[in-house]
Amino acid sequence: MTFTPAVTEQRFVLDQIVRIGELAASERFAAASEDVVDAVLEGVGQFAAGEWAPLNRAGDTVGAKWTPDGVVMPEGYPQAYKDYVEGGWGTIGAPEAFGGQGLPFALSTAVLETLGTANMGFALCPTLTVGAIEALVHHGTPEQQAAYLPHLATGEWTGTMNLTEPQAGSDVGALRATATPRGDGTYSIKGTKIFISFGDHDMAPNIVHLVLARTPEAPAGTRGISLFLVPKYRLNADGTPGDSNDVRVVSIEHKMGLHASPTCVLSFGDSDECVGELIGPEFGGMRAMFTMMNNARLNVGLQGVQVAEAATQRAVAYARERVQGARKTGAAAIIEHPDVRRMLLRMKAQTQAARALVYYAAAQVDRAAIGEAGAQNRLEVLTPLAKAHGTDLGNEVASLGVQVHGGMGFIEETGAAQFFRDARITPIYEGTNGIQAADLVGRKLALDNGGAFAGLMADLRGATSPALAELVAACDEVGRAMQAMDADDKLAGSYPFLTMLSVATCGWLMEREGAAVGNDDFGRMKKACVRFYLEQIVPEALGLKASALAGAEVLYAVEADAFAV
Amino acid sequence: MTFTPAVTEQRFVLDQIVRIGELAASERFAAASEDVVDAVLEGVGQFAAGEWAPLNRAGDTVGAKWTPDGVVMPEGYPQAYKDYVEGGWGTIGAPEAFGGQGLPFALSTAVLETLGTANMGFALCPTLTVGAIEALVHHGTPEQQAAYLPHLATGEWTGTMNLTEPQAGSDVGALRATATPRGDGTYSIKGTKIFISFGDHDMAPNIVHLVLARTPEAPAGTRGISLFLVPKYRLNADGTPGDSNDVRVVSIEHKMGLHASPTCVLSFGDSDECVGELIGPEFGGMRAMFTMMNNARLNVGLQGVQVAEAATQRAVAYARERVQGARKTGAAAIIEHPDVRRMLLRMKAQTQAARALVYYAAAQVDRAAIGEAGAQNRLEVLTPLAKAHGTDLGNEVASLGVQVHGGMGFIEETGAAQFFRDARITPIYEGTNGIQAADLVGRKLALDNGGAFAGLMADLRGATSPALAELVAACDEVGRAMQAMDADDKLAGSYPFLTMLSVATCGWLMEREGAAVGNDDFGRMKKACVRFYLEQIVPEALGLKASALAGAEVLYAVEADAFAV
Repeated sequence: MTFTPAVTEQRFVLDQIVRIGELAASERFAAASEDVVDAVLEGVGQFAAGEWAPLNRAGDTVGAKWTPDGVVMPEGYPQAYKDYVEGGWGTIGAPEAFGGQGLPFALSTAVLETLGTANMGFALCPTLTVGAIEALVHHGTPEQQAAYLPHLATGEWTGTMNLTEPQAGSDVGALRATATPRGDGTYSIKGTKIFISFGDHDMAPNIVHLVLARTPEAPAGTRGISLFLVPKYRLNADGTPGDSNDVRVVSIEHKMGLHASPTCVLSFGDSDECVGELIGPEFGGMRAMFTMMNNARLNVGLQGVQVAEAATQRAVAYARERVQGARKTGAAAIIEHPDVRRMLLRMKAQTQAARALVYYAAAQVDRAAIGEAGAQNRLEVLTPLAKAHGTDLGNEVASLGVQVHGGMGFIEETGAAQFFRDARITPIYEGTNGIQAADLVGRKLALDNGGAFAGLMADLRGATSPALAELVAACDEVGRAMQAMDADDKLAGSYPFLTMLSVATCGWLMEREGAAVGNDDFGRMKKACVRFYLEQIVPEALGLKASALAGAEVLYAVEADAFAV
Repeated sequence: MTFTPAVTEQRFVLDQIVRIGELAASERFAAASEDVVDAVLEGVGQFAAGEWAPLNRAGDTVGAKWTPDGVVMPEGYPQAYKDYVEGGWGTIGAPEAFGGQGLPFALSTAVLETLGTANMGFALCPTLTVGAIEALVHHGTPEQQAAYLPHLATGEWTGTMNLTEPQAGSDVGALRATATPRGDGTYSIKGTKIFISFGDHDMAPNIVHLVLARTPEAPAGTRGISLFLVPKYRLNADGTPGDSNDVRVVSIEHKMGLHASPTCVLSFGDSDECVGELIGPEFGGMRAMFTMMNNARLNVGLQGVQVAEAATQRAVAYARERVQGARKTGAAAIIEHPDVRRMLLRMKAQTQAARALVYYAAAQVDRAAIGEAGAQNRLEVLTPLAKAHGTDLGNEVASLGVQVHGGMGFIEETGAAQFFRDARITPIYEGTNGIQAADLVGRKLALDNGGAFAGLMADLRGATSPALAELVAACDEVGRAMQAMDADDKLAGSYPFLTMLSVATCGWLMEREGAAVGNDDFGRMKKACVRFYLEQIVPEALGLKASALAGAEVLYAVEADAFAV
C-alpha cells in the first residue's frame, strides 16, 4: 500500500495555476517564499506517508467506535493526530495573530490534499476545524477569538459544523434546535443534530461545536437561524477545558465508507445544562454558515482530488505489476493493454483536472484576501464547480481504479474498494451536488448582474484547442439561454450545465498547464494528460448541451405518482 | 423495503421487443401462450416478493459464511431455495427432455430479472446453473446428460463455472489446473480455482462444477484447454450423490458487496481423489466455455437491469415520502424538485433501456434456436453490448439511487448503499467490460465479413429521431473507420465505441417502445422515458465519437514507468 506524495505536481500547480509567486509578492503572504513552499510540501508528504497512510486501512476495517463514554478512534489515531498538531501541519493557513502561519489557503490546500490522499477519513477532521476557524475569524468577538482560536489554529482542539437535523437536511431552514437566553449573555442550547462528522472522538482535549439554532420568537425558515459556539467542555477561568457542557453523542452511523470518520448524532442540553455563545448577530446564522461552508465546499472538492490521486497511484502500481495476456513482446503487465492504459491515462488526466480546478478556486480565496479585483466573484462562481465536479471526478476515478484491478478490485483487502466506498459521500455532504448546481444557475449566474459568470467566460474564450473552444461557446450559449428561463427550466438543466462549465474550466487550466511544462518525464506525462483531456474528455461534455437546454417540461410530463408505476 | 415486480413493463417488453407471440407461433415454443407468460410473470413476482426480497438484507449483513464443513448460507436461504425449486422457477428455460419447461430463454430472462431485483446475490446461484445446463446440453454425452441434466434443470443441484486461477483471470489461457487420465475414461483433476461464485453452499444435495483444465502434453495457451465435469459428490450407481469427490472450499472472499453469494477458492484433488469427466472433445474447452459464457454474459447484463430496477424503486419511494424544501404549493416531497426529478426520470429511462437491450439480445437466443436467419449473428454482436452496457447502466442507476437519498444514501440501513456495492462487480466478472469491448471491435465487427455488424446498422438506420439518427451515422462512421485501423487503435477506442453502439441500439428499441404504448399511466410514463432517452441521453453518446476514433498513439506517448511519476 504505497503512497507517494504528489509533490512535483503540487508545486507545479501552485506555480502555474495558483501563481503562488504573485501571492508571495504581497505583504500578507510574504512568508510564502519558494523555500517555505518546498519545505511544506516535502515535510507534509513525509509526515503523511510515514504516519497517516499506514493507518488508512485500520480506519476502514476497525473504524471509529461509539462507547458510552464517547467515540474511540482506532489504535494509533490519537498519537498520529498529536504528531500532526506538533508538526504544525494544522497551522499552515491559520491566522498568525492566533498562532497560525498565515500562509496562503492554496498552500494549506496542498497540505490537506496530501494528508487526505494518505488517509481521507482522518483528514476530514482538520477540514472541519478549518470551518470553525473561518467562522470565528469572520464573526467572533475578540474575546471569543482569544479564547478559542489559538487552540483551533494549531489543531489542538477540533471543530465541528452542526447544521443537519432529521427533518432538515438540504432544507436548513427547517431546523428546530433552540437557543434560549440565560440572562448572562449566553444561551441554553437544546436539540438533536445528525450527520456531525467528528462530533466526538478521543484525539483532542476539547471540541468546538458550531451549532445552528433558533432563538425564541425567531422567524420561520432560514431568516430565523443563529449560530452558536458550544464547546464539548466549558472553559475554566484560565481558559483550559473544564466541566462537561451537556453535549452527548447518542450514536454513530453505520456508513458505506469513510469509517475512520465518526458521523455522530449529538444531543445538546439533555439536562438543560448546555451553554452556548452567539457567534455574529442574532439571525446571522445563515451568513456565518456560508462563511464556514464556502471553504468547506472547496475542501470537499479537494477530497475528490485526494481520493482520485490515491486510487490512481494504487491502480498504476497494480497495472504495472499484474501480468496478464500477451503483447507483441510476450507476456505483458496489464498497463500495456490499450483499454487498461486508456483507463489509467483517464484517471491521471481527471485527477490533474480536478486538482487544477480546486487549487484555482483556492487561489481566489487568497487573491480576495489581498484585495485583488474580481477574485471574490471568481471564487463564488468556482465554488460549486470545485465542490461538485471535483467530487464527481473523485468518484469516477475511484470506480476506474476498481475496474483496473479486475476481480481483485471487488476484494476488500486490495484497497481499491475502500476508495470507491469512501468517495461516495463527497457528492452528497456540504450541500449535495444538485444543490451546487442550483447555486450555480441561481445565485452565481445572477451575481454582479451576470458579471461574475461573464468574467469567467471571457477568460475561457482564451482557450485555443478546437473542441474546447466549441465547449466554451456552448457554455456561453447555455448561460445566456438560462438568463431567459424560468426557475424550473434552469434547475432542470443545472447539473449538465455545471458539468459542461467545469470541464470547460478544467480544459482551460489544463491547456495552460500543458504550455508550461518542459520535456522531462513530468512534462511528457503532463502533455499526454492534457492531450487526452482536450481531445477526449472535452468532447464528451459537448454531449451535455441538449440536457442543459432541455427545460423542465419532460420532467413534469407525468405526475409524481406515475414514477411508481 | 418494498419490492414490486415490474410485471407490466416485462410483459410489454416481451410483447414489443422480444415479440414473444412470434416465438409462440413456432413448434418449439408453442407452450409460451399468453396465459402461460402472464402466469409465469405474476407467479414469480409473488414468489420473489414474498420469499426472496425479505432475505436480501440478511444476505448483505450476515452473508454467506465459510466453515470447515463448507459454506453456510444465512438463515432462511436454504428453505427459500427449496421453495424456488419446488415452485418450478428453475425449469422455465430448461429443456423439456430433462424435466424443464422448454419455454423461451427470453421468458426465463424475465423470471431471473424478478428474482434478482428481489435479491441479486441469491439470484446469481441459478444464473450459474444455467451455464452448466448449456454446457451439458451442447457438449455432454447422452449419459452425462441423463445423469446430470434432470437435477440441474429443476435447480435441485446447482452449477458453477471454474475458469479463473490466481495467475489466469482475463487471460484464461494461462491456467494450470491439470486433468490426468485414470485409464477408465475419467480424469484425475488437480488445481486451485478462485472467484468461484456459489462454489459451495448448503442449499443443494450436490454441486456440479465445470472446470477448465489441461490434459498431459496439452499445447500452451487456450488451444490446450479442456472442460471437465466435477461433481461435489460422486454419483452412486442409482444416480444419487455419494462419496465426497475431494473438492475442498479453502476460503471465501471478503468482498465489497454481493455478500449473499459466496465467492470461493476451490481446491481440487488435494488427496488425488478428485474425479472428472471430459465434456466435449479434448482441447474443446474454450468452445464449451463460450457456450457457458455467452448466455452467462447476457445474464450478467441482466443483473444490471435487476439492480437498476431495485435501486429505482427504492429511490422513487424515498423521494415521494421525504419532504424537504418548498415548491409553489408549499412544503414538497423531494420528487417535486427538478434536479431530483431529473435523476429519477434518468434512472427509469436507463433501467428501461437496459431491459430493452438485454431482452432483445435474449430474444435472439430463442430466434436462433428456431432457426431464424441472422439471429445467431445478431446475438453475437449484441452480447458484449448487453453485458457491458447493461452493467454500466446498473452501476449508474445504483449511484443515482444513493444520490437521491442524500445523506441517508450513505447509511447502510437505508439499502441504497447495498445496491451500489453489489452492482460494482458486474462490469468485472464474466469477462470485464473492457474484454467485452475488445470482443466487439475484434471478433464481432469481423463476424460474417462484417455482415453481422452491418445487419444491426441497417436496422438502426430505421431510427427517426434526429439525435438518434446522428448517433447511428456516427456509429456507422466509427465502425467503418475501425475496419482500417490496426489492433491497438481499435482497442483504444473500443470502450467508447461499445457505449455509442449500445446507446444507439437502446435508442432504437426505446423508439419502438414509445410507438407501441397507449395513453394510460403506463404509456405516459413510457413516453416520458423515451423522450428523455432520445433527447438527453442519446446526445451524450455523441460526445464519445472523438474518443472512439482517437487511436492508441496518445496512450503510448509516454512509457509505462512514467505513469508512476
